[in-house]
Amino acid sequence: MTGHPSTRLDDTVHQRVRLGILTILATAGRADFTYLRDNLEVTDGNLGRHLEVLYQAGYVEIEKTFEGRRPRTWVSITRAGRRALKDHILALRQMIDEVPGG
Amino acid sequence: MTGHPSTRLDDTVHQRVRLGILTILATAGRADFTYLRDNLEVTDGNLGRHLEVLYQAGYVEIEKTFEGRRPRTWVSITRAGRRALKDHILALRQMIDEVPGG
Repeated sequence: MTGHPSTRLDDTVHQRVRLGILTILATAGRADFTYLRDNLEVTDGNLGRHLEVLYQAGYVEIEKTFEGRRPRTWVSITRAGRRALKDHILALRQMIDEVPGG
Repeated sequence: MTGHPSTRLDDTVHQRVRLGILTILATAGRADFTYLRDNLEVTDGNLGRHLEVLYQAGYVEIEKTFEGRRPRTWVSITRAGRRALKDHILALRQMIDEVPGG
């Protein structure tokens, strides 16, 4: 791999809230909209926009269900999403492992 | 520390090119403009804009010198820059260490 690791960072993954979404989903497998919104401390609209970016990239699946009459939206990470996150973390580690005390 | 680590990511540091600048400077101490531009594979204008953001935040010092008649711009990380990068890396590690295989 040539070039500085920062050139291998995927901006779709790297954005702060999106990185939070993917790391939660990669750990939990899936999470519902409310859990993501409250944990990441973002608004419904902000979370919705970031989920749309990740969905368009093929990194998450979004499932809208009903529990009784209450809507519930589940979000899960796809195989492509796991791959993108794994590659991104590899590049991040290459950057931060070089930093003394980092 | 409460809340998801993504809420402790500093957007001034987190942006891909700026994170690259700070990790290079934290390792090398200082670097010149051309080295940063070529290593991070960005244009003069793009690098200049990111350096301005980091300078305004107090995270880098910029020194314009001449070697003979050739201008040479040196960039170095400040104490505040090292502190911000260290805190940022701590939050990043908390996020990525949880990811299975991450």
